Amino acid sequence: MGKKQQLIALDMGIDTHQEPVVYMRNDCHICLAEGLKASSRVLVISDGQHIIATLNVVEQHVLPVQHIGFSSVALQRLGVESGASVQVKHAPVVSSTSAVRKKIYGHELSESDIRSIVVDIRDHHYSDIEITSFLCACAGNNLNSAEIVSLTRMMVESGKCLSWPKHKNVFDKHCVGGLPGNRTTPLVVAIVSAAGLIIPKNSSRAITSPAGTADTMEVLMKVELDLPEIQAVVDKTGACLVWGGAVNLSPIDEILIRIESALNLDGEGQLIASVLSKKIAAGSTHVLIDIPVGGTAKIRTLADAERLADLFMEVGTTLGLEMRCVISDGSHPIGRGIGPAEEARDVLAVLQRIEQAPQDLRLRALTLSAQLLDFANGYGLDVALQIATEILDSGQAWQQFQRIVDAQGRASKIPKANHHTIEYAKRDGCVRSIDNRRLARLAKLAGAPKEQGAGIRLHIDVGDKIVKGMPLFTLFTDTLGQRDYALGYFHDNRDLFEIGV
Amino acid sequence: MGKKQQLIALDMGIDTHQEPVVYMRNDCHICLAEGLKASSRVLVISDGQHIIATLNVVEQHVLPVQHIGFSSVALQRLGVESGASVQVKHAPVVSSTSAVRKKIYGHELSESDIRSIVVDIRDHHYSDIEITSFLCACAGNNLNSAEIVSLTRMMVESGKCLSWPKHKNVFDKHCVGGLPGNRTTPLVVAIVSAAGLIIPKNSSRAITSPAGTADTMEVLMKVELDLPEIQAVVDKTGACLVWGGAVNLSPIDEILIRIESALNLDGEGQLIASVLSKKIAAGSTHVLIDIPVGGTAKIRTLADAERLADLFMEVGTTLGLEMRCVISDGSHPIGRGIGPAEEARDVLAVLQRIEQAPQDLRLRALTLSAQLLDFANGYGLDVALQIATEILDSGQAWQQFQRIVDAQGRASKIPKANHHTIEYAKRDGCVRSIDNRRLARLAKLAGAPKEQGAGIRLHIDVGDKIVKGMPLFTLFTDTLGQRDYALGYFHDNRDLFEIGV
Repeated sequence: MGKKQQLIALDMGIDTHQEPVVYMRNDCHICLAEGLKASSRVLVISDGQHIIATLNVVEQHVLPVQHIGFSSVALQRLGVESGASVQVKHAPVVSSTSAVRKKIYGHELSESDIRSIVVDIRDHHYSDIEITSFLCACAGNNLNSAEIVSLTRMMVESGKCLSWPKHKNVFDKHCVGGLPGNRTTPLVVAIVSAAGLIIPKNSSRAITSPAGTADTMEVLMKVELDLPEIQAVVDKTGACLVWGGAVNLSPIDEILIRIESALNLDGEGQLIASVLSKKIAAGSTHVLIDIPVGGTAKIRTLADAERLADLFMEVGTTLGLEMRCVISDGSHPIGRGIGPAEEARDVLAVLQRIEQAPQDLRLRALTLSAQLLDFANGYGLDVALQIATEILDSGQAWQQFQRIVDAQGRASKIPKANHHTIEYAKRDGCVRSIDNRRLARLAKLAGAPKEQGAGIRLHIDVGDKIVKGMPLFTLFTDTLGQRDYALGYFHDNRDLFEIGV
Repeated sequence: MGKKQQLIALDMGIDTHQEPVVYMRNDCHICLAEGLKASSRVLVISDGQHIIATLNVVEQHVLPVQHIGFSSVALQRLGVESGASVQVKHAPVVSSTSAVRKKIYGHELSESDIRSIVVDIRDHHYSDIEITSFLCACAGNNLNSAEIVSLTRMMVESGKCLSWPKHKNVFDKHCVGGLPGNRTTPLVVAIVSAAGLIIPKNSSRAITSPAGTADTMEVLMKVELDLPEIQAVVDKTGACLVWGGAVNLSPIDEILIRIESALNLDGEGQLIASVLSKKIAAGSTHVLIDIPVGGTAKIRTLADAERLADLFMEVGTTLGLEMRCVISDGSHPIGRGIGPAEEARDVLAVLQRIEQAPQDLRLRALTLSAQLLDFANGYGLDVALQIATEILDSGQAWQQFQRIVDAQGRASKIPKANHHTIEYAKRDGCVRSIDNRRLARLAKLAGAPKEQGAGIRLHIDVGDKIVKGMPLFTLFTDTLGQRDYALGYFHDNRDLFEIGV
């Protein structure tokens, strides 16, 4: 190929987040010859590697002749530096997008349709709007169980896997979420691993919530471990509490989550595939799913919860997992802290058996631990609950949690937000309800989970009697801009706390 | 407000197409104070005007201290120039996106939900992925007739309207598309307006096809007219052939079309609302809808076509229009040219009664004209067809077309592509079928409709006997890059012409 076909790469110093962008001059001979326009999708090739990027066209003073600018992620994905020689063409037609259209029009996807979509997404061939169209096509109840099985299987195939040849039974639990503050996972992992169960827990970061388990645990310990490190921690303690994204267990999940999070969208089929693919990739054999139901939780009615539980059971069993689903009360937030640091404080308070520890969080953790212990040993739930309670009350769970923290690597100390503001009750009354969704949004506007110290500490619970002037909650933010932004939202949404007479 | 809160605007010389982007330094005090990150949505305010833009974070050498960079469309929408003082904050929560999520989860939208979505889209408050989620939520058969009525009404309300107080009956026709080359509209408009009907035709540019009527007419005449100009053309000739987008008849439609086009997606409810909102805004009272059905057309089965026709009838009638729907043969391309210039040549050949003019195009135009003449005057279809044929054969339609061209403003001459390539048959046989979709894609890859001269001229039709070495089609492209790109696609898809023995 002649020199005329080559351009010289230049780092533009522009961070476009995860969407790779390249910049070409409006008089660039390749733009003219190929008919490329702003927002065209282009194929950029260097040294046998390629990426698909979005084109921005720039005026001639922005770039030297014969150069092509790269955003940070474009440079990083192509694996080149400024000065590298690259070739640019029209992006090829991404043929799997026709399968996405098929789904939008309500037709069933075959396993090979789903494989082609997953491979194209993993290889970064989809633009953000194409990823969005896939997510929206699959959201609602639009995937049937066969499609969810295929999607789960393809998501597992697209990433790495852990295996535990020494252990016949490997446990895991997952809560579908929607309750701010409901951080039971670290407690359950500590309790059941203290009882001898193997539970190598890979958690997500937040999708639509103010903190995921991985975000919360990162406040206390290192959560980005590689595969041999995870193996070592589990060999030592029987458990771990790591971020699954760091070990590439389900790489397309991380790509999808970025868009789901921007859209505040977390579809049913996608949810099941995302959860189960990570359980399978983590080598689990027994999976407990907790589905909280409440008017402002993610799952709003018992019928929806039962439908979701049935789908989880069907898909998981088809894929060779032992499954158990628990439908629980999701009518109000659990614990008092919302956001990574505040939730971590609640977890520690329960483990350390401090008097002010939130009792609702403690009780949920014990109940779920009992389910897992019964699942493993068939004790019956009453006996299992006694065992779990004794492990927590005797301090064994706290000791076990510290072993896990030490094995993974202790964090320096719990980060503190720069600013805190207390909001007070404007009148006497009784707390009738707390809106989980709007409370979660408030914590996110404050900066959670990106800023670890940001979030909320509730001073009231559903059922409490309050008098005018009593503190409702403390808001933690790192910046004054975020504080004002969050408080602006709260002042427009004071009724997220429903106060009755 | 203190000076500290203000930044100085700088034109970055970057064309980001229709998605406004602003660029801020990674050490900018406002980024830090507000907690803004790459890909955050930000509110940019200047002089009482505001836009919502996507943030790209840049290294310190890219921008001077205290400055904020703007992409071209961001600068233009905010209405400022380099040097202007602007303020930047977190974008407010766009509350109508919760209605979009509601739709994704399969719930019905109220008129007020739809109003809030349409207003937010019109005011550019949605990011591209949010627009995508709305389009995907509404695609397939996901909107019921009440929702389509509301969407149509809100789309009309969001733009300008034409009115024709001098005329009681105002006619319009629309083809739902999917057949390359099927350019009947200019022929029908010429024929029925020569017969005395008032038909002020506002057409779209291409959404998923290689040319829309507006793209094709632009080859022959000025199509971007303002409201008084349209009024004058219709007063003079009884008709017009203009681009609806230029007069802001349905501004959100132009925003949606950009994303629909990138996704190659054209949903049913969205289609009906888009078509009918423009008919109502154009002041039409009588609307004829042509729905071609074929295995590779947009509508693939008779059942789908009937469903769509019923919805068109129901929604149109509810909104006070007289409606008529025709289901037609969509099994193969119509005419010989595909792409703006090539389709314009076919239209002229039919009007000028040239012997080689495509007879299938002529026949469809006569049939649709007859439908409109019967709709207007109740002639019965046989008599109406005789009248239409006489108007075409006597040259009255050609004279009337020239009057319209002269009234709108004649274009200089039909543009010619820089390159043409002929593809030949590889063996003897009979043309069993031609795939409309893949043929359309081939023409688009060649550069249609953006390059007016780009496209295809077919040398064969379904049913033709061919021998090895006979020309199949000529491909027209402006650049060699596009030629190679399109031919690459053809060589992988030679079976788009199904040749039997």
